[in-house]
Amino acid sequence: MNQTTSFFNLIQKDIEILNNNLKKMVGAKHPILYAAAEHLFKAGGKRIRPIIVLLVAKATSQNSTILNEQRRLAEITEIIHTASLVHDDVLDDCGTRRGIKTVHSAFNTKIAVLAGDFLFAQSSWYLANLGQLEVVKIISKVITDFAEGEVRQGSARFDITISLNNYTEKSFYKTASLIAASCQGTAMLADERKEISYNLHLYGKHLGLAFQIIDDILDITSSSTVLGKPEGSDLKNGNLTASIFFCALKNKQVQKSIKREFTEPNDIFNTLEQIKNSKGIQKAKDLASEHVQTALQCLKCLDQHNKDVQGLKYLANYTLQRLY
Amino acid sequence: MNQTTSFFNLIQKDIEILNNNLKKMVGAKHPILYAAAEHLFKAGGKRIRPIIVLLVAKATSQNSTILNEQRRLAEITEIIHTASLVHDDVLDDCGTRRGIKTVHSAFNTKIAVLAGDFLFAQSSWYLANLGQLEVVKIISKVITDFAEGEVRQGSARFDITISLNNYTEKSFYKTASLIAASCQGTAMLADERKEISYNLHLYGKHLGLAFQIIDDILDITSSSTVLGKPEGSDLKNGNLTASIFFCALKNKQVQKSIKREFTEPNDIFNTLEQIKNSKGIQKAKDLASEHVQTALQCLKCLDQHNKDVQGLKYLANYTLQRLY
Repeated sequence: MNQTTSFFNLIQKDIEILNNNLKKMVGAKHPILYAAAEHLFKAGGKRIRPIIVLLVAKATSQNSTILNEQRRLAEITEIIHTASLVHDDVLDDCGTRRGIKTVHSAFNTKIAVLAGDFLFAQSSWYLANLGQLEVVKIISKVITDFAEGEVRQGSARFDITISLNNYTEKSFYKTASLIAASCQGTAMLADERKEISYNLHLYGKHLGLAFQIIDDILDITSSSTVLGKPEGSDLKNGNLTASIFFCALKNKQVQKSIKREFTEPNDIFNTLEQIKNSKGIQKAKDLASEHVQTALQCLKCLDQHNKDVQGLKYLANYTLQRLY
Repeated sequence: MNQTTSFFNLIQKDIEILNNNLKKMVGAKHPILYAAAEHLFKAGGKRIRPIIVLLVAKATSQNSTILNEQRRLAEITEIIHTASLVHDDVLDDCGTRRGIKTVHSAFNTKIAVLAGDFLFAQSSWYLANLGQLEVVKIISKVITDFAEGEVRQGSARFDITISLNNYTEKSFYKTASLIAASCQGTAMLADERKEISYNLHLYGKHLGLAFQIIDDILDITSSSTVLGKPEGSDLKNGNLTASIFFCALKNKQVQKSIKREFTEPNDIFNTLEQIKNSKGIQKAKDLASEHVQTALQCLKCLDQHNKDVQGLKYLANYTLQRLY
């Protein structure tokens, strides 16, 4: 049994419980929304966010148990993430996601807006019913951050003057904020110690940033078959991710193509090739690796012999392995 | 000074404070969202929801004072309402609202989705920071209800088999739920007595239903100039409101036109004329009037000599006056 198998064994049963609960929570009242939701929940996705929440729950408990409230938070986290994807696909005009058609293209924009609203609303309702005001505050902030990230991404399209800091902030709002807040919230539900929940917030933040950077690299280097969505879509949308940013810093031709928003024939193809052959990819990998190291540091407050803590470490390193 | 003037004097200063706070709360961080939001908040709207909240706050306090948390709830209520309008306009493909272009048509669908998400997210964040878990639960349910109402409306388009009960439920989810919950929440913020907050929930519910029924009648009887949006848009969208419902019950020609979704020339014009000349309008008015009477009954738990309670009564009756 290799490391990956043994890692997934650690959490597999809990993910099955989560999958069943997600189906019940989203409900089957309305044929259209049910179809939209089922379509998404069936497709699966990586369940990275609930896996992190469930592992944090186990790692911060005395005997590797997960509280009902923590399971609920894992489910809420996945619902928020799914809601954000549905609206994100409308914003990006994305046709496929997780290897299948997006709600937006399988149904239409209206259904996508409504399905996203419905999922956001359901998550707020379940969140309030967790009955822990501090956790409600932390997770509510995430939904604001998600909108903030989308706006920043929208207003920085094709803008080659953005800084690496801009990119990191945008990635925090879009991705890391949810993971950070759900790690922190999970710890808060079981443990009153602020030090633990603060460190887990930082673990989630840096893991989330690494995860987003790797996702952005894969968007450049992978085929659409592997990605389950069209390759190079960030570039086409003018969303300047880390490897594009690093390449453009040194390459006037790439700068020009981005500035003119790829209006010349072969602009996109040529730019993709130049990024793939530049040091931009490696620099982006190094950046992700730095975040993984910081995330690992944040786990030092927990028992290093605990197998769930080792699971959290494995997960951080696994983020980088997705490239190979 | 007539009754309307003296009513608005009762609350005018508080509405000015609210308007200023709304501008600050929505923030000016992002040019596009700020434009979208300003566009909406400048246009004003009737501010009916915050007026109700502020009056309930005054009517349930000893000396007509409004708590800071109650002001915040009035602001949150208006933000949720505005967010729902922005997404509603995307769903209905509506070009004008409050006499000006909708976000969706002035900018585009993407900005409208984002602006709505941003406003919903801001409201959740401010709501959590009210620090009253029971109020958070009650208001969170409203956002779920809003999505529920939209789905019900969507799946019942052009369906002449719906019952009056269907219409009332849909109106509750779309409109009355927010007013009922904000009345209840406002009372809960100041007064522990469940009887008071429950009665104010019912007051808000029946006022909200009356308000929606009248709004739906105006959609049939008014010109687009008065409405600030295209007339007869409910009918065109197959959204069978009370007066359409009552007319269709007795009129086979109207039933036929609705069934074929107005595909024949002049179907919409003819149907509008038939509804205007039918007893459907009066029956819908009677229905609204019944809800106003029920709303007034719910105020009996409060001091009848209090001028703010009289304001709440005036507001209920004013709902019906909008037709004249």
